[in-house]
Amino acid sequence: VTRDEASAFTGFAANPLDRRAGLRVNAEAIRSLAAGPVRVVVMCGERMVAAPGPPVEAAFDVATAARFGAGPDIFLGVGEDGTAWFGGQSQRAEDALKAEGLMVRDLRPLMVERAVDDATLAILGQARGLLVWHRTHPRCARCGEGTVIADGGWRRSCPACGASHFPRTDPVVIMLAHRGDACLLARKPVFAPGMYSCLAGFVEPGETIEDAVRRETLEEAAIRVGRVAYHAAQPWPMPFSQLMIGCFAEALNDDITLEDAELEAGRWFSRAECRAMLEGTHPEGLFCPPPAAIAHTLLRAWIEGAG
Amino acid sequence: VTRDEASAFTGFAANPLDRRAGLRVNAEAIRSLAAGPVRVVVMCGERMVAAPGPPVEAAFDVATAARFGAGPDIFLGVGEDGTAWFGGQSQRAEDALKAEGLMVRDLRPLMVERAVDDATLAILGQARGLLVWHRTHPRCARCGEGTVIADGGWRRSCPACGASHFPRTDPVVIMLAHRGDACLLARKPVFAPGMYSCLAGFVEPGETIEDAVRRETLEEAAIRVGRVAYHAAQPWPMPFSQLMIGCFAEALNDDITLEDAELEAGRWFSRAECRAMLEGTHPEGLFCPPPAAIAHTLLRAWIEGAG
Repeated sequence: VTRDEASAFTGFAANPLDRRAGLRVNAEAIRSLAAGPVRVVVMCGERMVAAPGPPVEAAFDVATAARFGAGPDIFLGVGEDGTAWFGGQSQRAEDALKAEGLMVRDLRPLMVERAVDDATLAILGQARGLLVWHRTHPRCARCGEGTVIADGGWRRSCPACGASHFPRTDPVVIMLAHRGDACLLARKPVFAPGMYSCLAGFVEPGETIEDAVRRETLEEAAIRVGRVAYHAAQPWPMPFSQLMIGCFAEALNDDITLEDAELEAGRWFSRAECRAMLEGTHPEGLFCPPPAAIAHTLLRAWIEGAG
Repeated sequence: VTRDEASAFTGFAANPLDRRAGLRVNAEAIRSLAAGPVRVVVMCGERMVAAPGPPVEAAFDVATAARFGAGPDIFLGVGEDGTAWFGGQSQRAEDALKAEGLMVRDLRPLMVERAVDDATLAILGQARGLLVWHRTHPRCARCGEGTVIADGGWRRSCPACGASHFPRTDPVVIMLAHRGDACLLARKPVFAPGMYSCLAGFVEPGETIEDAVRRETLEEAAIRVGRVAYHAAQPWPMPFSQLMIGCFAEALNDDITLEDAELEAGRWFSRAECRAMLEGTHPEGLFCPPPAAIAHTLLRAWIEGAG
């Protein structure tokens, strides 16, 4: 399988697991996998549980996971070495886990610090996407009763009304709008000071990817977009499971008007300036998201002539 | 805005509405729009309500929609002529509406029969995606209590626990796997006799678009895929809101093994044979999905040299 595609170099993309989706409905087969060599990714609320390193240990055998209050609830897939990977939600309090010497941390700093290798990071992202969905959807959206995990964690079933609910992944467009030698970057108030990134937004019912790119760019910056070119995709598990769809967008006008609520600053940046931002040498100290972010992938490809 | 992109020619893509997303949180502005020139798309359960034509009338003024038991509940956007479009769920029974001479029909046959123009079809798809989501998500997945429409229909709010829930759109990959002069088409038991189409499947948490294409093709037909190339996207509102992401997939082996449950037949078709299927001249009477389907878009582009 060729891996020279742009998506393969985005964060959370290097997932090595064989998901064996056909096994999910087979509870006996999953129990049998859980009895062999296993790694369990454990979450406490919306944070990852890990043993401090180096190297940081972000998944555990079944007995250790049980000691941390988590079972092999969600079947993630099987690794190349035959290890079955699961996810589990700890039933213990964060402080109790910390008292045992464990780290209980958000996934984002683990990503930024490169605390685990790329393959493990991707598995943590997959686990987070599923576990957070289970955590935030304990009840039936149709009838209101409590639902239960089914199909190895790939479904929730309602014993009261019979409805099935499936893990949710929201498609999001993220685009680098460009015009001549310049591209449009902006910042939200929540960004670290000095950081600029691409515009982005959810794809809505009734839209193509390209129409969503045009709508969001117009809404957020009053920039009209013509041609849209898909470049790469990225699974992004924070705050919940999203599919980031990265595109280049040909801008048709220069005059940026920012939407008040979403963005606090935005302007055109030259290729040279973007290169300095990626390399950390921008004279004003401006910078871009880290390599794991698809905004970084888009920006680097554009500097090198894509789009 | 350029419209020569492949996505623009998929069904449900020709949506002309300006969504004015910034207005959604402004209930007064939406009420004001609802008091001007309005078209309301009315659904009865999961079916569309229309006045028989020709031309078929698939949206109504506020007074007529009210007579059919539906209000302007969901704000869809504003047309080029200044008309505000809304969606509403009828509170009346299907038989009562039919007794007034109305049609109450699934969206699919309206699409296949081209009963309405492409722009109206796209608006009906947008309305269906939102209205079906509201209909199937009346309760809070977090606490189980009843939720209420907010933000002009773009959110549901839980008065009990304060949770917000947003309309869901599921990303789906649909791919034409090709190898030399041949492409892989298959059929599900539910297809009309003689119809063959592309493989497809949901993008899961933790996957890129390209990885989803590879996993689904391997799972469903035991065909390994190398290079994946995005071609076009399509909003697809049935049975619920999906974003179809159409790709070409370079197949790396020839020997198809179908997964038992999903597919009843599948094989390689030559370009000449595919052309005959699209033109309705295949000697065995085999055919492909209609032009509104992105499978048709992919197949026609491949015949003409894409992929």
